Amino acid sequence: MLGEKKFAVEYVEERPWERRLDFLMLNPSGEVPVLIGEAGTIAGHYAISEWLEEKGGALPLMPSSGLSRAEVRRISAWFDDKFHQEVGRLITVEKIDRRFMGAEDGGGGPDMDVVRVGLHNLNLHLEYLTYLLQSRDWLAGGEMSLADLTAAAHLSCLDYTGDVPWKLWPVMRDWYARLKSRPSFRPLLADHVAGMRPPPYYADPDF
Amino acid sequence: MLGEKKFAVEYVEERPWERRLDFLMLNPSGEVPVLIGEAGTIAGHYAISEWLEEKGGALPLMPSSGLSRAEVRRISAWFDDKFHQEVGRLITVEKIDRRFMGAEDGGGGPDMDVVRVGLHNLNLHLEYLTYLLQSRDWLAGGEMSLADLTAAAHLSCLDYTGDVPWKLWPVMRDWYARLKSRPSFRPLLADHVAGMRPPPYYADPDF
Repeated sequence: MLGEKKFAVEYVEERPWERRLDFLMLNPSGEVPVLIGEAGTIAGHYAISEWLEEKGGALPLMPSSGLSRAEVRRISAWFDDKFHQEVGRLITVEKIDRRFMGAEDGGGGPDMDVVRVGLHNLNLHLEYLTYLLQSRDWLAGGEMSLADLTAAAHLSCLDYTGDVPWKLWPVMRDWYARLKSRPSFRPLLADHVAGMRPPPYYADPDF
Repeated sequence: MLGEKKFAVEYVEERPWERRLDFLMLNPSGEVPVLIGEAGTIAGHYAISEWLEEKGGALPLMPSSGLSRAEVRRISAWFDDKFHQEVGRLITVEKIDRRFMGAEDGGGGPDMDVVRVGLHNLNLHLEYLTYLLQSRDWLAGGEMSLADLTAAAHLSCLDYTGDVPWKLWPVMRDWYARLKSRPSFRPLLADHVAGMRPPPYYADPDF
């Protein structure tokens, strides 16, 4: 979202499970993301994305009609709540987050039974998203929006561990290829998890 | 929110765990709330609350400054995500939702170990909210906002089963008494769960 709007930002790594006191002073909920700007500090993806959209920037990521904005927010919430609970949390937390946690915070190797439930749910979600894209160019309507960026963020995490069965879902693959080829995605796709290599097609717009 | 804005609405009961096909056509995520209006259908509390705020109504529930709006959204998301996951889900789902679910959907009596974890977390949250209200009239700033209504909605569910230790948290009790005495709250406090009576002080603004 920052890239599409051409807002300059410097990224700082935070491991929220370490519950650093200085970080808790910025966001008492102890969660990322937190945006620190000249005007002040804004905590949480909901407050940050709405604030960035109010600021405007190079590209609007919400349509002008109220009902169309509601559809963008419905799909964004779908990913942040439902998709994360039913898919992302089960795969990404098991395969990535737990590698970096101490045993006392729940760290360790992935529980593959949990991962399998996530993979099963992922296909149900990809089926619904394919249905949406059969009547729309982008997930929430005719223009690319916050809904597409939210969805791509969640799917990109799953793609990093090679868990998105793109061959089964060609409509979703074409949609994701359009996003991957945008300049805003290049720095994101170049970012690596320490000690974990993504599959060769991960950063390739033609995959 | 509808009451404060004086938007007329008719409520329809929905048991989302029954996954009625007609309801899934309105909201494929199968979750409440869904708002059906003349202009169209809006699904999910995030899309609905932002849409109502854009419509305006009798009382604004977001401040005009961008940073203050971000604070309203931070606190609202705190309740809808963090408070619900750490407290509400553990108490309300165990004590209320499971009474109405069939055994095949996870119905049955409450697991009191789960409820106890929720009660422990509730006191940690009430401590933080008390801290906020020591420097503010309302949770997100100087005016009542969506953050207060969101918080009151979550706490009211816990109050229905008598699980909020108001005596330990007098600052929170005073805040909640101000909300309970508003006309918009009267119909909400008169609403009862079938076969379950709330404690006598539940609907009383002087409790």
